[in-house]
Parts: sequence; structure tokens; C-alpha cells
Amino acid sequence: MANDKKLVEAITSMEEDFAQWYTDVVKKAELCDYSSVKGCMIIKPAGYAIWEQIQQQLDAAFKKTGVENVYMPLFIPESLLQKEKDHVEGFAPEVAWVTHGGLEPLQERMCVRPTSETLFCDFYKNEVQSYRDLPKVYNQWCSVVRWEKTTRPFLRSREFLWQEGHTVHATAKEAQERTIQMLNVYADFARDVLAIPVVKGQKTEKEKFAGAEDTYTIEALMHDGKALQSGTSHNFGDGFARAFDIQYTDKNNTLQYCHQTSWGVSTRIIGAVIMVHGDDSGLKLPPKVAPTQIMIVPIQQKKEGVLDKAYELKNRLSKQGFRVKVDDTDKSPGWKFNECEMRGIPFRIEIGPKEIENNQCGFVRRDTREKISVHLDEVETKAAELLETIQKDMYEAAKAHLESHTYTASSWEEFCDSINNKPGFVKAMWCGDQACENKIKEELAATSRCMPFEQEQISNQCVCCGQPAKKMVYWGRAY
Amino acid sequence: MANDKKLVEAITSMEEDFAQWYTDVVKKAELCDYSSVKGCMIIKPAGYAIWEQIQQQLDAAFKKTGVENVYMPLFIPESLLQKEKDHVEGFAPEVAWVTHGGLEPLQERMCVRPTSETLFCDFYKNEVQSYRDLPKVYNQWCSVVRWEKTTRPFLRSREFLWQEGHTVHATAKEAQERTIQMLNVYADFARDVLAIPVVKGQKTEKEKFAGAEDTYTIEALMHDGKALQSGTSHNFGDGFARAFDIQYTDKNNTLQYCHQTSWGVSTRIIGAVIMVHGDDSGLKLPPKVAPTQIMIVPIQQKKEGVLDKAYELKNRLSKQGFRVKVDDTDKSPGWKFNECEMRGIPFRIEIGPKEIENNQCGFVRRDTREKISVHLDEVETKAAELLETIQKDMYEAAKAHLESHTYTASSWEEFCDSINNKPGFVKAMWCGDQACENKIKEELAATSRCMPFEQEQISNQCVCCGQPAKKMVYWGRAY
Repeated sequence: MANDKKLVEAITSMEEDFAQWYTDVVKKAELCDYSSVKGCMIIKPAGYAIWEQIQQQLDAAFKKTGVENVYMPLFIPESLLQKEKDHVEGFAPEVAWVTHGGLEPLQERMCVRPTSETLFCDFYKNEVQSYRDLPKVYNQWCSVVRWEKTTRPFLRSREFLWQEGHTVHATAKEAQERTIQMLNVYADFARDVLAIPVVKGQKTEKEKFAGAEDTYTIEALMHDGKALQSGTSHNFGDGFARAFDIQYTDKNNTLQYCHQTSWGVSTRIIGAVIMVHGDDSGLKLPPKVAPTQIMIVPIQQKKEGVLDKAYELKNRLSKQGFRVKVDDTDKSPGWKFNECEMRGIPFRIEIGPKEIENNQCGFVRRDTREKISVHLDEVETKAAELLETIQKDMYEAAKAHLESHTYTASSWEEFCDSINNKPGFVKAMWCGDQACENKIKEELAATSRCMPFEQEQISNQCVCCGQPAKKMVYWGRAY
Repeated sequence: MANDKKLVEAITSMEEDFAQWYTDVVKKAELCDYSSVKGCMIIKPAGYAIWEQIQQQLDAAFKKTGVENVYMPLFIPESLLQKEKDHVEGFAPEVAWVTHGGLEPLQERMCVRPTSETLFCDFYKNEVQSYRDLPKVYNQWCSVVRWEKTTRPFLRSREFLWQEGHTVHATAKEAQERTIQMLNVYADFARDVLAIPVVKGQKTEKEKFAGAEDTYTIEALMHDGKALQSGTSHNFGDGFARAFDIQYTDKNNTLQYCHQTSWGVSTRIIGAVIMVHGDDSGLKLPPKVAPTQIMIVPIQQKKEGVLDKAYELKNRLSKQGFRVKVDDTDKSPGWKFNECEMRGIPFRIEIGPKEIENNQCGFVRRDTREKISVHLDEVETKAAELLETIQKDMYEAAKAHLESHTYTASSWEEFCDSINNKPGFVKAMWCGDQACENKIKEELAATSRCMPFEQEQISNQCVCCGQPAKKMVYWGRAY
């Protein structure tokens, strides 16, 4: 039994040190690892399998809205990056530069893409001529590089995986609709697949994407009360189109500038899954995104018939489309239970000679640890029900946490008290002046997370300066 | 009708100029495009959708053999690249170097991965301690960069997409078995999905991968008689393990070096699909890899009921899992037919008022252009049958071409005549001396493609020098 405890003991408790807990879970659940390349991580099989689930399901949701996938070059020539002024100012300080190809210095240096607006614009400039060519709704799955100083697994690294959608439209209205449509795809995906409730809203001028007219975001709340920006959707208006000269002839044969959007979700969202759902026993994966949904753990597996019955159950459950495995290694059952918990497998099935004799097996939920006895004839239906229940309950638990950690503040004192003493979102009014955002950042290390679509009138005055309020804003400390 | 012909007229005939035909098809079928980044291509939706089919099906085949996916960093520090002597000599002249991160010069420059053996070895060195940790059978889907001087869409570009599997094993035997197992996965995939017959065999010392003990290959024959290396599988023995110090303790508690393999297929294989199957009307896609398998073309679509019937057929066929679309644009039917052909859609369904009246529709095959009438009640079963027939017939046609363009030569004169005048593979005996390979390359611009597993004794003497022969080799000019 000493061995059985080791896996758990090695994790720092969340309450004691949340950052260390996070690092421990990432390491012990074998999601990713540090590499010899400073600031770059290795995504290991257990972590990459989660990303594959995210990719498949998000990609299917994209395609339902007419998205087509493409692949653009990894490199951006410096002159191309510089075409849109705000964009280059935002990204130039944090890109990696390629200066030599083979043994020769390059005539013009190129950066490794930090994001691909400039490449898509350069492409659309030639691709779009007439209104008949519009819209183009393209996306790519790729890796991007941003030269971060401090890094953390999944949350911030010099290279990360993501998808970036880039669309081009005839009208401002259509571009705005697509921007909001994709934000909703993200929010629905977070809720329905990742069991993560989010606040949808618009970023302030200060927080918006370099080069965007408007940026929209989904903001999630982690277990420690810090916010995580989990997906963004940008409306570029015709700013990039003017910088790159992307024009089309409309039905009246008049030249018009196009309107564009971009939107992205990255491996960062795996960090959200870990920090929203995890506990002191490790990861907790919502069934829809869990690479293994059910682990069958044979008890006294050397006894005749036990392993056979375990494999039989696996085959029956696989046939129904569940992602199921048997842990038939020579580890002890207790060790296997702990591993199931550490890896966040939604539920495990315990089956041994006693259970077989009674024509039963035990289902043990990861989220509540509840154990129920299931008749062997009913395994398929009960498994389907339980996975659905776990998915729903995990969402409800995360929603309750979000709600109980969302505060309102109508005075500066209340606001400071909330930010400093009550980890979570603070809803407070804002005058619209960037000076107040700057003061809040400097004095409280908090930022405006978004101006939510669901506005409330908490008071009439800016919580910071007392001037007339324009918007209700979600504030918080963030990853 | 002038318009209807334009699409076709724009393609150069294969017989006239095969290289230009290839470029025209790539462009007209909208598979990919040149970018502002020299030597890098843009994979457009029609091209990327083929890659997605390849990825999904190859990935599923990998996973059946126990492969797990991971993601390694994009960058390789120079010191890491240099650890294995042959490997660095092979790749250093053709890598892109990153020298600056953000505004600072790097302390050590890094290359953009041309392949990831060194990164995987650096990882396995820490990951593998005991025989219990073995084997590791990892793969990644990613892009790699090689600084090529001359480039061609899909066939050779400075950046390309691929998968690279990297495995580590306890014994030489196991590594050899995995090497051959993956070569067989590739050969089966080429045959069963891409409808491309291949020659399986081993590369000579001269042609093997930089750092490998042995390299195995699948070689396909293009319509113009040139060979295309379509997938390779390498056995590294313990060479990398010694260079990177990847050791494990065996059951007797003795330290042992690991044995490793790697294997890869790239977007290059899309070039093979184009050049094996295409004709003067454009692309011809085998049903299993075609993103759209069936295009429904309504005739007189403005007449009442025609579009409704077309959509009804689409829904029925979609429900059966076919990838099917309706071309309801306002182009003429003739134009649509040409587009279906250019894009290689396996068959189209023509349906108009006359067909509806007779409770029929027309199936027109892309490969043979044969048209058959199908009763509307039988659309699903006939579609399934026809797709299967097309898949099979396309393979048989490619196989017949490969066989009719494979020659044997037992003298230097025959050999020269074959290489110069009969595009295709030439089977001929070889003494095993690299000097003969060099002579053949210099004088005939041909290379040894592989030493096939299925050996034949064509003569006793090397076709080049007349010395005693050791191996029968497939020779040819290659992409």
C-alpha cells in the first residue's frame, strides 16, 4: 500500500500552492514535459490526445458553419509583417527571426509566424477579385511562436499549437456577424464539450488585438479565482484590407475594400480544463474531451475468468462507441485507482471474482467518487447515462464556482477589497478611460477581462475615478 | 459553350509537356498556390482536404499498431543537431537558422526542424530508464523545413507537412520488426486508399537516410515513367542511442543501449496521387481519398422540382456516409461537368426533368467517362458499388502502367537504352559498389530506387561494371 499512496503524495495540495499543484498535475498526469529548447514544451501522449479531441470536435463545429481548412507558410518576410502598423508594433518585439537558409544569409530576414493575418491578407489580395469570390472562410491548424520571457506548460510557451481562422467578406455587417458567430462556436464548445462556463464580451481598446477594430473574448474562471482568456474573435473592419489592398468589384462594378475577421483557440485551453476541473487527486476530464472515458480495472486479475470478463466488457463498451481501456498491467488495484484519478478518467469499472459471481461490477465516478453497483447486463446503458451525468454535473459545479466567485463593487474600496481578498471576477462600472484601466493594473495587478454582452447597471459612476460610467466590466487577475 | 471549354483548354496536354501539365492541374484544380515566401506553398482548401483524408486514414492505421501522437518543439539548438555525426552532415547544409528571439540575439542559434530525430532522442534519453518503459512508439504530425534550391508544388518545397514516427525499443529485432511493419502500413495505405501500387525494398548505402543503419522505401511510378519515393522507414540500430546516451536497465539490471526507428510520409504523396492517376482533363481522385466523392449536377435546375430532387439525393447519400455535394451554382451544366473532371471527383450524378420523369438519374464515372442510368430507388446501393469499382479499377490501371513500364536489362547497352528511351523502372543486377551507382547517376541521371524485397536473378553480373552481382536493383529517373 505504500506504493499506492506515492502517486498522490507527490502532488502539492491546491490550497497550499495552486501554481505548484498545476505543475505537479501536468507532470504526474504526463500531459507535457519541458524540453532542451528553452520555453518550448513537449506535449506527451496523454496531453496530445486531449488536443486531438479538441481539434476533432472544434473542427467539426467549424465545418458546420462553412469553414474550409488551408495551410499557409511558417515564415513571414519582414516587409510583409510591417504592412499593418498596429499589428507590427504588437508583434515585432516577440518574434523569432530566421536570418540564414542553409549556408547563406537571407536577403530579407523572416520571422516565424506569431499569427498569420499578414500571410492570409497577402493571399487574399490575389485570390479575391469579384463579389463572386466572397466570402472566404478559411482556417488553419498549426503552431505559432512568440518569444515569451516567462513560460508555463500550456498557459504560456514560446511555441504553441492553435487554430487561426481568417475570413474575408463583402460587407462590414457580414464580418461582424462572422466574428460573433465564431465567438459563439467557442462559447458553446467550452460549455458543451469542456464543461467550462464562460463570460462572453468585448475587449476594451487597451486589451484588444493588435490591428483589430474590435476583439471579443470568452473568459473562464479558474479554481484559484484567476481568469483565463480562452478564445478570441476579432473584427478587423477594412483596416487590413486597406493596408494590403484587398479589393473586390461589387455587382455595380465598383471597387470596394473587403472586411475581415480572425479567431483563435490554442492549447492554452487545456490549461483551463486542468484548472477549472482538477482537484488534489489530479486531473478531472469531462467525458466529451476525455481520450479514455472509462478504465476497466480488474481485481484479483490472476483469478480465472477475471481478465476475460474485463476484455468482454471492453469490447461491449467499445462497440457502443465509448473510449474504453483495460488496465491489465501488474500494478496493484489501488495503484491503478490512483492513476485513473490522476489522469482524470471520468469513471472506472471495478470487476473481480466477487462481482462476477453476483453478475455485477462497480462504477466509480472520478468527479464525486461515488460508487454504484451495475448489473452486467446493463453496462452499456448505465455507462451512457453516467457519462452524460458526469458531463452535466461537472459543468454545474464549474458554473456554481464561477457564480460564487463573481462579485460586484460599486466603490473603489469595495473594488480593492474584492480584487485583493476575494479571488474571482469583479463586476464594476467603468468610464471608458484607459487611465482608469492603467491605474487598476498598476495598483491591483488586475485587468479588464471584458465588457460582457449582458450588461448590468451596478452604479452610475466609474469605480475608479467616479466619472459617469459607460460600461459594466468584468475585472480580475488573469493568467 | 465557349466558357465550358476554357477550363480544359487551359491545361497543357500530358504528352506535350508533363511538367507543365502537372503545374496546370495543381493550379486549375486549386490544390495549392505559390506564396510571397520564396519556396513555400499555400495549400488551398481542395488540396488540404486531400491531406486531411490522408491524415485521418493513415493516423487510424498507425493507432491500430499502437502508435501514440505527441508534439515536439519546432526548433533544434545547434549543439543538439550536431550530436549524431552522419545526421548533422546530411542536414546542416539545408536548414533555416533562427538567430534572434524578439529584439535579442540568441546565445545559441537554433534551426527550424528539418526532421526531429535529435529532439526525440533528447526526450527519450530522460524518458527511458528501464525495460518497463519500452517500447515507446510515438509519432507527430507537423511541418518541417529544408532549404531547397528548386521547388515544385507538393514535390519539393522549403516547408512541407508530414508525419514522423520515432520509436525506441529494447532489442535490435524489435526495432527491425517495427521498421518493416510501418513500411507495410505505408504500402498497404498506398494500395488500398490511394490506389497506387508500389515497389517495396531497401535503399542502398548511398541513398539511405543520414544517420540510419538501413532505410526502406516504397517507390511509385508516375505516369511519365519517373519514380517517386513515397514513404520511408528507417532502422537506426543503436547509433542514435549511443550518440545521445539512451540506455535502459534490462531484467538482469544491466545497462543496455536502445534501438530506434523513424518513418515518414509527407504531402509529397499528394504529388503521387496527381501524377499516377491524372489525365488531360485534370485530377482523378480514388474514392477513398476524395474529399468529395460524388457531385450532383442538376440539369435545367430552374425547372420546378429539379433542385429539390438533387438535395433529396444528397441527403440520402450523405446519410449512408458518402461525401457528396450539389453544384447549385448558376454555371452551365457543361462547365460544372468540366469542373468535376478537373477536380477529380470520382463520379457525378446528372439529374434533370427528363431523368426525374423516368425515375432515373445518370452516373458518370470520372475514370472511364462511362455513363450509366440508375433507378432513383437504387441510388445508394449503386453509388456504393460504383465507388468500390472505381477504386479497384484505378488501382488496376495504375498497376498495369507500373508493370508495362518496368523493364529488365542484363547489359550496359540495354540498361542505357531503357533509361534513355523507355521511361519507367529498370530492373538490373548490381555488384554493390557505390562507384557503379555514381557512374549511372552521372551518365544517365538515374538512381537506384531500391533493392526490392522480391529479388530476381536477371544475370550474374553487375549491369554497370560486369563484376559478380550481389543484388537486383530497381533503377530509374526520379522526382
